[in-house]
Amino acid sequence: MKKLNALIDRIAARKTALVGRDFLLTWQKSRPELEQILDLAEALRLLRARNLDTRCFASGLAVSQFRDNSTRTRFSFASAANLLGLAVQDLDEGKSQIAHGETLRETAVMISFLADAIGIRDDMYLGAGHEYMAEVAQALDDAVTAGVLPQRPVVVNLQCDRDHPTQSMADLQHLVREFGSLEALRGKRLAMTWAYSPSYGKPLSVPQGIIGLMTRLGMDVVLAHPEGYGLIPEIVALAGRQAQENGGSFTQVTSMGEAFADADIVYPKSWAPYAVMGRRTELLRARDHAGLQALEQECLAQNAHHRNWECTDALMATTRDGKGLYLHCLPADISGVSCEQGEVTAPVFDRFRDPLYRQAGCKPYVIAAMILAGRCADPGVVLRELVRRARPRTAG
Amino acid sequence: MKKLNALIDRIAARKTALVGRDFLLTWQKSRPELEQILDLAEALRLLRARNLDTRCFASGLAVSQFRDNSTRTRFSFASAANLLGLAVQDLDEGKSQIAHGETLRETAVMISFLADAIGIRDDMYLGAGHEYMAEVAQALDDAVTAGVLPQRPVVVNLQCDRDHPTQSMADLQHLVREFGSLEALRGKRLAMTWAYSPSYGKPLSVPQGIIGLMTRLGMDVVLAHPEGYGLIPEIVALAGRQAQENGGSFTQVTSMGEAFADADIVYPKSWAPYAVMGRRTELLRARDHAGLQALEQECLAQNAHHRNWECTDALMATTRDGKGLYLHCLPADISGVSCEQGEVTAPVFDRFRDPLYRQAGCKPYVIAAMILAGRCADPGVVLRELVRRARPRTAG
Amino acid sequence: MKKLNALIDRIAARKTALVGRDFLLTWQKSRPELEQILDLAEALRLLRARNLDTRCFASGLAVSQFRDNSTRTRFSFASAANLLGLAVQDLDEGKSQIAHGETLRETAVMISFLADAIGIRDDMYLGAGHEYMAEVAQALDDAVTAGVLPQRPVVVNLQCDRDHPTQSMADLQHLVREFGSLEALRGKRLAMTWAYSPSYGKPLSVPQGIIGLMTRLGMDVVLAHPEGYGLIPEIVALAGRQAQENGGSFTQVTSMGEAFADADIVYPKSWAPYAVMGRRTELLRARDHAGLQALEQECLAQNAHHRNWECTDALMATTRDGKGLYLHCLPADISGVSCEQGEVTAPVFDRFRDPLYRQAGCKPYVIAAMILAGRCADPGVVLRELVRRARPRTAG
Repeated sequence: MKKLNALIDRIAARKTALVGRDFLLTWQKSRPELEQILDLAEALRLLRARNLDTRCFASGLAVSQFRDNSTRTRFSFASAANLLGLAVQDLDEGKSQIAHGETLRETAVMISFLADAIGIRDDMYLGAGHEYMAEVAQALDDAVTAGVLPQRPVVVNLQCDRDHPTQSMADLQHLVREFGSLEALRGKRLAMTWAYSPSYGKPLSVPQGIIGLMTRLGMDVVLAHPEGYGLIPEIVALAGRQAQENGGSFTQVTSMGEAFADADIVYPKSWAPYAVMGRRTELLRARDHAGLQALEQECLAQNAHHRNWECTDALMATTRDGKGLYLHCLPADISGVSCEQGEVTAPVFDRFRDPLYRQAGCKPYVIAAMILAGRCADPGVVLRELVRRARPRTAG
Repeated sequence: MKKLNALIDRIAARKTALVGRDFLLTWQKSRPELEQILDLAEALRLLRARNLDTRCFASGLAVSQFRDNSTRTRFSFASAANLLGLAVQDLDEGKSQIAHGETLRETAVMISFLADAIGIRDDMYLGAGHEYMAEVAQALDDAVTAGVLPQRPVVVNLQCDRDHPTQSMADLQHLVREFGSLEALRGKRLAMTWAYSPSYGKPLSVPQGIIGLMTRLGMDVVLAHPEGYGLIPEIVALAGRQAQENGGSFTQVTSMGEAFADADIVYPKSWAPYAVMGRRTELLRARDHAGLQALEQECLAQNAHHRNWECTDALMATTRDGKGLYLHCLPADISGVSCEQGEVTAPVFDRFRDPLYRQAGCKPYVIAAMILAGRCADPGVVLRELVRRARPRTAG
Repeated sequence: MKKLNALIDRIAARKTALVGRDFLLTWQKSRPELEQILDLAEALRLLRARNLDTRCFASGLAVSQFRDNSTRTRFSFASAANLLGLAVQDLDEGKSQIAHGETLRETAVMISFLADAIGIRDDMYLGAGHEYMAEVAQALDDAVTAGVLPQRPVVVNLQCDRDHPTQSMADLQHLVREFGSLEALRGKRLAMTWAYSPSYGKPLSVPQGIIGLMTRLGMDVVLAHPEGYGLIPEIVALAGRQAQENGGSFTQVTSMGEAFADADIVYPKSWAPYAVMGRRTELLRARDHAGLQALEQECLAQNAHHRNWECTDALMATTRDGKGLYLHCLPADISGVSCEQGEVTAPVFDRFRDPLYRQAGCKPYVIAAMILAGRCADPGVVLRELVRRARPRTAG
């Protein structure tokens, strides 16, 4: 309880400009704001672990819009909403009148009359996902200014073409819990590396989110990928600048082995070649199915040249004292389990299964923290009230 | 707060027979009953605007069944349910055993054991939507009589072939808020007119709902449409009788220009020719896809003769002092935005965007009012209790 | 109120090992445990009938996974969750990343971080449904042991290849309410018989669930079906053993007439031939559509030999004093209503419509009881608290 109260004191004392703002890209947030999200997530986790009712809303909708498939983010969003007292309402474009020619601006308002949060996943089109969310956010701002909406729902990016902040912040909460504190991460070496997968078209948002966030913490971030698998150049440049400003480093290497050497943390994960994602976006827009299939074949053939980018026990042995922490956003392509050969061998994955699941378990709290911070001017007061009233979550 | 308390006093004093009854057609309701719905909707809106918890149900389901696509009514229903404390459970016919040969009577009971409200949209078949809802209602009555159901859920028509009462009542709440009172609408001229759209098969329920409701308020209602685009004759006749009984007028003209002249309110909106809707119903039932496509082509060709039925700035200038209020149920077919040429020009739409969104924002409260009135014998007592306990909706 | 308090006293006094355990098969539960579920279900029903708030959870998810269509079980699960204060979150495999190669073990954890209950329907594959649920349960156990999950959600079988415990327990609650007590069922004759249906592939779980449960209550259970329509042999053997141990009987006959003679309760229902279900499982796995169609034709032809297995007034007249109680899990294939010829004639069905609907109305409470018992160490204390605080479910 002492730990929880200290956490709440820290939250109450911190000045941020999170309220009334969306959570779209971690690099739009200040360091204290990121710390606030982490502290709020941890406080909510502790409250729930003490079986305390965490609801801050008596009613209100949390709207989700998944423009791509999702299990864990979908359940994390639903869990976060439920934790705060909000009801999930999914915007299923197939069942809506959006195809009917309705503008995004209009849809954004129509779903928001009684909404406190809108979570959006839009990661299929390079150069479009973030823009979509920004357009929703602008429409909501306009509607609030015009007196059309009684409240401004906070927009939470559940993965776009640029960033995956609920993932990277959950990863960071996991690291804080594993290493003891945010400060303890300073000087740690994190290897964000490409890995082979017999699939194609995986978004770039996870590696971009990781290098875009972890370079702000004084870590030594290493990015590795085969030639042609680069990320959005602006975000790579951003990572470099941030590392410099925050006393860490950002380097790029061309093999998994170089990246893993003495790493404290490794994050081997497949993604699509940047150029392919760009061409894919054009083909998707043109609904060119034959073109998409041809591109897929080409890309799979290209991938196949890099089958040796696999996270193995031998590689893990080269990490710091052979004890590097393995991260993955899941689901992983596990060799011999979910595919013939993939991102990681079964022994490595099995050894890290529990920490991986704990990593995934951070996401509901991180999303709840983003919603709470975006909607409540003084979350410290809210948390103190939850502690004071001390209502049990479950009876009996 | 004074305004809210006066409203609640008025609600508490009014005698209605809304409790235990469904809300299927506005013309089945008395004038005081319609006023009660408007007052309840406004009271709920004010409560929420004061950040008060509006939940009247600790638990209970609000079942939705959308037999046609929907965004705003779906979200309005979900918002209304959430506002009152009910959880939405969607009846998705594709995932149910209804195709399995189950009778409607049985399904109605099976979804209702713990339900407080059932919202249904069924607007595809002329001569079938209202009947469907009435059959559900009858099954529920029988089940209550037989002691099978512990409570009688209220059925709310979310659009049928005859009426769209959550739309027309939301439109009316919007008019009351724009003109100051229900009484202020007396003598006002409202033009319900057809408008061109490059699509086909839009239901007749909105224009029918508008002439079926607004002719009861002492308004001068004008209906305009091209030849062959008439509405269900019985409802047109009803509108005439109602206008006579309530001291207004109901006239029909054959051009948008005639209808708009000196109008206080204009509602230009596309709908399908009545005869086409009848033939379409038969083809849908026969699953005659070729027939449906041929009909669509024929109908689009017919529509194309009336491209000049477009709401323009020039036409808006002919309304009362050039200040007529533009209404639409949304989404509108906006020329140059959602289609090449449509119901309304972009400048007109843009000028009325904010009031249109406010119009749409009335629907959640109107639906909540219908549910509350249908389930609570004394909603005035309920609202007073909400004011008395004064629990905040959001913490912090 | 006296009845309710006596019920709660009985619940509080009973020792069971239900907490922390799943509800997969009734035959895994002791007699006192089954009685506890029945008492809890009845207590929840009485609480709600007295308009008392029954929520025991302030927040938490109830996850549903329907791998086959469902209306009444889906709504029963949603109703049960809502009754207890949980929010339903559906795992729709089509919208998830499961097809992506994710292991079941992983999915089970990913959906459970804030879940209190997981309801699963998996009845398509003989020899697979129960195994699926057991694998989910094992994954959850492992995750709790590893400290990955903050709570262990209870898994509730919403129909597998072996048992349909929410159905059979709801049926039992119905019988207790019709006959007055569990003891009153001792010595009663129950005929579980096959019936003709012009469809194919209906699961065996209902008849198996009925003979697996009712043989434990001292009843005389008679199973009747045409040759080739046998159930899973192990479950038939189990029914025999249980009848012997509990002072009743279990017999098999080969005609509806023999089974119905002097029966107090009849349960005529179609199911697929056991051998067909086995072959169907193999074909489904091989995605052999042509094979499945051929099998369906063969099976329908086989079914057609047994059209006389129809529950008629003449047969009902042969039950005990002509007053036997007709049961069905619904929807029934009603001759002349939902099919040309089916399981039951319209006059029989119509006469029993109300009791059938009451039977179906037991399921939400039975599911809620299973969740409550699985999650609360002392449900008697929880119910006493609900009575003590006496919050109304609906205002006004």
